[in-house]
Amino acid sequence: METGNGLPLYGVILAGGSGTRFWPLSRSQYPKQVLKLLGSESLLQATIERLLPRIPLTRLAVVSNAAQADVINLDLFRKGWTDIKVWLEPQGRNTAAAVGLAAIVLPLETDTDIMAVFPADHYIGNQTEFFRALDQGAELAQAGYLVTFGIKPTRPDTGYGYLKAGKALGANGYGYQCAAFIEKPELSRAQAFLSDGGYYWNSGMFLFRRDVILDALARYLPDLHQELRLLGERDQSLEETYRKIPSISLDQGIMEKAANVAVVPADLEWSDVGTWEAFYRLLKKDSRGNTKVGRVEDLDSRNCLIFAQNRLVGTIGLEDVIVVDTADASLVCHRDRVQDVKGLVERLTNLNLEESVQHPTVEHPWGHYQIIAQGPCYKVKEIVVAPGKRLSLQLHRYRTEHWVVVEGTPMVTIGNENLAVPVNESVFVPLKTFHRLENPGQEPVKIIEVQTGTYLEEDDIVRLDDDFWRLPENADQSQTVGSPGSHR
Amino acid sequence: METGNGLPLYGVILAGGSGTRFWPLSRSQYPKQVLKLLGSESLLQATIERLLPRIPLTRLAVVSNAAQADVINLDLFRKGWTDIKVWLEPQGRNTAAAVGLAAIVLPLETDTDIMAVFPADHYIGNQTEFFRALDQGAELAQAGYLVTFGIKPTRPDTGYGYLKAGKALGANGYGYQCAAFIEKPELSRAQAFLSDGGYYWNSGMFLFRRDVILDALARYLPDLHQELRLLGERDQSLEETYRKIPSISLDQGIMEKAANVAVVPADLEWSDVGTWEAFYRLLKKDSRGNTKVGRVEDLDSRNCLIFAQNRLVGTIGLEDVIVVDTADASLVCHRDRVQDVKGLVERLTNLNLEESVQHPTVEHPWGHYQIIAQGPCYKVKEIVVAPGKRLSLQLHRYRTEHWVVVEGTPMVTIGNENLAVPVNESVFVPLKTFHRLENPGQEPVKIIEVQTGTYLEEDDIVRLDDDFWRLPENADQSQTVGSPGSHR
Repeated sequence: METGNGLPLYGVILAGGSGTRFWPLSRSQYPKQVLKLLGSESLLQATIERLLPRIPLTRLAVVSNAAQADVINLDLFRKGWTDIKVWLEPQGRNTAAAVGLAAIVLPLETDTDIMAVFPADHYIGNQTEFFRALDQGAELAQAGYLVTFGIKPTRPDTGYGYLKAGKALGANGYGYQCAAFIEKPELSRAQAFLSDGGYYWNSGMFLFRRDVILDALARYLPDLHQELRLLGERDQSLEETYRKIPSISLDQGIMEKAANVAVVPADLEWSDVGTWEAFYRLLKKDSRGNTKVGRVEDLDSRNCLIFAQNRLVGTIGLEDVIVVDTADASLVCHRDRVQDVKGLVERLTNLNLEESVQHPTVEHPWGHYQIIAQGPCYKVKEIVVAPGKRLSLQLHRYRTEHWVVVEGTPMVTIGNENLAVPVNESVFVPLKTFHRLENPGQEPVKIIEVQTGTYLEEDDIVRLDDDFWRLPENADQSQTVGSPGSHR
Repeated sequence: METGNGLPLYGVILAGGSGTRFWPLSRSQYPKQVLKLLGSESLLQATIERLLPRIPLTRLAVVSNAAQADVINLDLFRKGWTDIKVWLEPQGRNTAAAVGLAAIVLPLETDTDIMAVFPADHYIGNQTEFFRALDQGAELAQAGYLVTFGIKPTRPDTGYGYLKAGKALGANGYGYQCAAFIEKPELSRAQAFLSDGGYYWNSGMFLFRRDVILDALARYLPDLHQELRLLGERDQSLEETYRKIPSISLDQGIMEKAANVAVVPADLEWSDVGTWEAFYRLLKKDSRGNTKVGRVEDLDSRNCLIFAQNRLVGTIGLEDVIVVDTADASLVCHRDRVQDVKGLVERLTNLNLEESVQHPTVEHPWGHYQIIAQGPCYKVKEIVVAPGKRLSLQLHRYRTEHWVVVEGTPMVTIGNENLAVPVNESVFVPLKTFHRLENPGQEPVKIIEVQTGTYLEEDDIVRLDDDFWRLPENADQSQTVGSPGSHR
């Protein structure tokens, strides 16, 4: 379903964020964009769903990075969106590089020249207004503008960039020349913007013609443009390009400098869901100003976000505190200090703590596993295989595995044997023996796996066959530019 | 080693507290008295260690309750204190009943008539002063007084009872007639006590002659006395007695009313370790007033107690907050509200939440186990058997067990078979088959046990042989009064 008569758009979704600000719910291997913070869909899924009535799947691309390939692919796979292009940057180089990459590879992919760029992890409450703004933005983009969506400020927030509306570019509310682009201001300045009016928050959404953004890159970020040109002409690999290009945001690198920036004011009921505080603001609160999620028992707290999962969290007499409890790590943070979660996670990363990288529960296209115990020479997992799914046909060089079936009846392949294993029976997987776990039934299969060996990391896996995107040749393909299309 | 020439004492340790105030570190099945809050010994162990130079093991008794029998016995077992009497009340009936029980059964146990009563869960920093006070208290007890230790107040605490010193009963500091016994006062009154002087905190430690306390019980709590008399004359079982007797504290039932109460001021560096706040007060703090225990990463918090174990806790910008994180539950509580932890746990108990009852890790005389995963029809445990120890010879009626050895080499008995099982091998324990796990080695044995069955509770166990105190006939013995001595 297309909406209205808007110009055709090519949608580029920026999904490379590390999401450190939502620790411990986000991890570097489980970033914010795949979190189901607001309902049953991840922020990335919701971003795509929001676009689908306006931009078909075949004209959507997700830009992420190689380290997050599996988790992004899985998030798309879960919705059956196997037609979406996923462009993987070898490493994060901020938004100018990601948008530049999209502009360079775009001609390979589409028949429209207007790119619409969306962060993967924002909330938009007013879909109708969103489509209206898209159509108006597309017209201004077609006319040669670098178009941004401006959000009318509701408070003097110092966490956003501000856009000053200049000369009107059409009928009232249609759009304005951007008179100034102000990076995160001091509080007093933000207060003045709010009372003066005519200032908008920079939503991080953009529309422009491919040739217009490439011209702007050539003018304002010539080094970046030169490297992208070499990439586009296949004179340089993606890896080499990304090693050389500067890391700078589109805002700082282009929008603050360019003269042809336009603002389309849009009353989107928008949030960048940028911090635990922004998340708290979006949630329904009880009469004491609290939002409680999961297994929480509270006495007399006020204006708190208390977010739990399966563990029990008891709280008493707190005020303006955010508690986030996960299986292996907890955060307790004053609401005024949510910006510092990032700094805390940097510290955890510097200390090499696994809790900054991965959850104990790891999702896979076939189901999920959770590490439930481990020691120097063993690891115990609870593995759940979804109905009709199977793991890859694989072997391990350094570990053996004991499987005890506790729910369902899996089909198990070990070497040349293939057998159904009922509940309460166990099998042993020897070293260097191809094996496969499959759930042919209607209910989930659950097994307890006890691994023993001298090396127990996930990369001790040789795959011979896989139902998903995880065989080595596919992984290689995804690294190739020239045809950086789907690597799935 | 006896100290000085004090009168011989019989020590009664009150260890029946439910310890709800230290949730989530304490649970109803793992009460405060067995927590290692202050060093490597539990509070109960430290209480006994403190007494041993003055009162020999053979003249010490612990009063606890049947529900806590295993955990109390284990705590004593760990120190090799198998000679200590453990009197088990069928249910908690507050301190008047516990002290009355001790006074009734005492003649069976000892040749001294002076009872010294100590809570199992207090801290005393000054041991020398403690012995001095014991000797002075014993002399006043011998002279017919109901003796209490009075702690000089250091703040207008409204959480303690206060004793007003009256007429001096000997040389300066020797002791005073107690002029008034004031239950937890209002703040203004507590402030007046502090500035007026001559008031002491009631420490909950007492000395009296057996006949003196029995006389007082007869006079002030005649119902309680009558039931205890029937018990002493073996005309009534312990269960029946405890069903009938009132639940009242010794303070309220006797000390507030009796005329012959004496106060021995004692500068013990005492704490009742009664709340997380009292615990925080005892701990060493960093320059920001924080005490951090375990895996904690903090940014800029002040005057906080952040207590973690193996999970990671991140805290940012907190002030006057207590965070206590355990394997399955967390508490986040403002320091002014620590008294309400009890109310929170009552709520958990009313909701029938397992987290108020038991830790995931359960200690046993042979080692410990942890429940690492569970579902309707399975339970997975990590079991650690200490060197030289073995579990009971047992069978289960409703569950089978898979054992995978991940550390050490246990000897395993299953039915008539007895075999050593090396690392990375597994065995299966069928239904209704006697089995035993033993660690003959020098290092801990660790196994992963996967139970499956229709009923997976701990009481599905039939023991044929045990190295400890857990065979059914012993358990029965412990319930008998008449000879309520050791049930071990």
